Amino acid sequence: MPNFRPIYLVVGALLLALATLMALPALIDIATASPEWHAFAAAAFITGFSGGALVLLGQDRKVQFGIREAFLLTNACWIATAGFAALPLAFRSDLSYVDAFFETISGLTTTGSTVLVGLDQMPRGLLFWRSLLQWIGGVGIVLMAILILPFLRVGGMQLFRAESSDRSEKVVPRPVQLAARIGWIYLALTMACAAAYALAGMSPFDAINHAMTTLSTGGYSTHDASLGYFRQPSVHWIATAFMALGALPFVLYINAVRGNWHSLWRDQQVRAFFRLLLAVSVLLAGWRWLAGNESFLTAFRLAAFNVTSIITTTGYATADYGAWGAFPVGLFLLLTFVGGCTGSTSGAVKVFRFQVLFLMAHEQLRRLLLPHGSFPRRYNGAHVPDDIIPSVLAFLAAYMIAVFMLTLGLGYYGLDLVTSFSGAATAIANVGPGLGPIIGPTGNFASLPDGAKWLLSLGMLLGRLELFTVLVIFLPTFWRI
Amino acid sequence: MPNFRPIYLVVGALLLALATLMALPALIDIATASPEWHAFAAAAFITGFSGGALVLLGQDRKVQFGIREAFLLTNACWIATAGFAALPLAFRSDLSYVDAFFETISGLTTTGSTVLVGLDQMPRGLLFWRSLLQWIGGVGIVLMAILILPFLRVGGMQLFRAESSDRSEKVVPRPVQLAARIGWIYLALTMACAAAYALAGMSPFDAINHAMTTLSTGGYSTHDASLGYFRQPSVHWIATAFMALGALPFVLYINAVRGNWHSLWRDQQVRAFFRLLLAVSVLLAGWRWLAGNESFLTAFRLAAFNVTSIITTTGYATADYGAWGAFPVGLFLLLTFVGGCTGSTSGAVKVFRFQVLFLMAHEQLRRLLLPHGSFPRRYNGAHVPDDIIPSVLAFLAAYMIAVFMLTLGLGYYGLDLVTSFSGAATAIANVGPGLGPIIGPTGNFASLPDGAKWLLSLGMLLGRLELFTVLVIFLPTFWRI
Repeated sequence: MPNFRPIYLVVGALLLALATLMALPALIDIATASPEWHAFAAAAFITGFSGGALVLLGQDRKVQFGIREAFLLTNACWIATAGFAALPLAFRSDLSYVDAFFETISGLTTTGSTVLVGLDQMPRGLLFWRSLLQWIGGVGIVLMAILILPFLRVGGMQLFRAESSDRSEKVVPRPVQLAARIGWIYLALTMACAAAYALAGMSPFDAINHAMTTLSTGGYSTHDASLGYFRQPSVHWIATAFMALGALPFVLYINAVRGNWHSLWRDQQVRAFFRLLLAVSVLLAGWRWLAGNESFLTAFRLAAFNVTSIITTTGYATADYGAWGAFPVGLFLLLTFVGGCTGSTSGAVKVFRFQVLFLMAHEQLRRLLLPHGSFPRRYNGAHVPDDIIPSVLAFLAAYMIAVFMLTLGLGYYGLDLVTSFSGAATAIANVGPGLGPIIGPTGNFASLPDGAKWLLSLGMLLGRLELFTVLVIFLPTFWRI
Repeated sequence: MPNFRPIYLVVGALLLALATLMALPALIDIATASPEWHAFAAAAFITGFSGGALVLLGQDRKVQFGIREAFLLTNACWIATAGFAALPLAFRSDLSYVDAFFETISGLTTTGSTVLVGLDQMPRGLLFWRSLLQWIGGVGIVLMAILILPFLRVGGMQLFRAESSDRSEKVVPRPVQLAARIGWIYLALTMACAAAYALAGMSPFDAINHAMTTLSTGGYSTHDASLGYFRQPSVHWIATAFMALGALPFVLYINAVRGNWHSLWRDQQVRAFFRLLLAVSVLLAGWRWLAGNESFLTAFRLAAFNVTSIITTTGYATADYGAWGAFPVGLFLLLTFVGGCTGSTSGAVKVFRFQVLFLMAHEQLRRLLLPHGSFPRRYNGAHVPDDIIPSVLAFLAAYMIAVFMLTLGLGYYGLDLVTSFSGAATAIANVGPGLGPIIGPTGNFASLPDGAKWLLSLGMLLGRLELFTVLVIFLPTFWRI
């Protein structure tokens, strides 16, 4: 059996921090004379009490911490945080616990699917809490990809070696120092984004909230119309730029801050990511422009914004691209699977895995002609070890199977094919909006049956923890060894 | 450059055989006093003349035949046969060449999607020609999987070693002898099926036509209502049984004929195939039964028939399962990808590849816990070589990418998402019907734009030739070495 004590300890400490964070929205509600602060105070009390109890339970003289404990801890952190962070929402009279949990896990995983209607009239504390969930979720994802997954690799976890994308990790040797630098960069980028938004005409509250959900590629907004609420083209371009920045590998920023900007621009994944953004945006802008709907510049702005929003798995909307026609809709569904770079706040499959896939498919094709040929695999100038290929491909296979299974599960609750397939894809990719009238960019997840909301919550968690982190726990061997 | 002469020779000989085959429908038309025989006579003349010319062009003293020639030949055989076999249909006043080509490639690849409406009133020669196309296509697929793909493997073609599934090939050493045995078994099974259909009440003409399209898992019918035209439950059960028989590895029948039935029942792929058929049929029958639509026996018959029809990639319909609800529709879309066993007449991914996938995914999961563990991979009692895994996974990845690209292409022609995605899936899997009101089980491909029909034709060919056989030709290396 795994050793649960260190898990209690860390989860308890995390809950204590979460309880402290709940003071922020409570203060905002008090400042704006909203009675909602009661919900945050009550939730903080319960969360803090539970956290303290777990910390006491977790006291242990000798710490045994192996691979299994790391897997359990990763799962436990996300589930416990979501479960308790949902309390302030669950205390509202208009939300059931499943709604509150869905909204919270959607926030923490930076998915951005929402069950709330009437955001413009919501108390500011609640709106800030949603943005804060995405913001801490975003940095949590980056740190998990840089600190936890390499730890699992140190134990021989070859599977995740390729996925943390931290080849330059050795630059900063100590994990705490690394985490602190990532945190500062994340904060600085968020403040720059908020300042840009404010200069473009957003109110300070809107600017801060949207900066938090832009950098985390989360996509929650303080308005039902999402970023479409703001008519200024500059706002859309700022969002496009910072969504893209949030989807870059954060370890490369550390080098960039030290003056080595080349490591960012020379990265093979970063280049492919920007090439893809540009190509698809131009393609879609051309399509819109030829259809005669608007000027090329407007078409390019709308295309670039929505394409970046989906590829980075943010999920903001400025327009109902569900009405753009059959080809754009199919394209957006496809883009749902892409994702940004590894080690960023974005979700989905991520550019790196597609590059490995194409590397491998090309090799297999050439091997048909030259069966005994030697095809050295290189990525970012380095040799790709053999075990990376099956890891990446197993991930891709598990990803597709998970999407199909979730589609079937949502079909069980009576959702039509477009809603269930796009819903499954958007949840596992942590994007946000799906397709169709119900969960499309102008829709809302509120009307779905409770069972579908639980399934989608599971999908978001699965996708965020890169599937295998969750699946490994269901392996009988996990509990046997 | 590859050597084209042997390709001309073989394709020419194939066209001469095709021209001879065209005499059969012409005779049927003459016997039923239908003027349609002119079309077959003219097509036979053109096909025979072209075939003769190619045979003359292909005369060569020394034969150079390597891997590239084998790839080119495989592609050329299918495309040339489809191009000329389409002529009798193209000579009809109500069909354009694209319609005729679509119908023919759909027949030859045993897909079974049709653009013809009013089958019940069509001349018998034409109906027989469609069935004959599927029947020769079916045996062509089996022979290609057993004789051509192993030839490519002999030259070091490790990728296709796993796909021809002919581990027991050594039992019959000479390829011509092997082909003859497969041919006899195919003929005997078809005659048994026709006899069973006739006993169940079909007219002799219907029995022969449906037997040809059942064994080939093709799915063409002589009636617009497909097998739903026949109300006898016995007809549905006979079809279910022989569709399943057509989807088994034909090499195993050779052992079975020699008295070694065990090799058929003990085959890991065959067992998984039947287990899957049974499980999904019972699940779907239960769903229909609980919905209170019919007795369990009727529900089980309808479920077993339609599930077997889709999994074996036949594509017959007895009922509009598009109206069975969201869950069954999602399930049928998923089943479109499955396929039967390798070395059979069925298409799609095939059971074997999913078994390798699960083998590998399970290994990867366990490797997370035991990074240095030893996990011997066994399939059908034998060790699975390392190079099989990337081959199978590259195939799966290429398969999904092809489906998504084809979906986008169909979206370009304005088809909605359900039509374009299910259309792409059904074409590449060589199943037949898609989903939705246009191309669903009660629909028809006639109303699609010409561009969409060309794309779907390409999809059928890609799927039938297992993707890489076609893709390898587009590799620059192919023409350079």
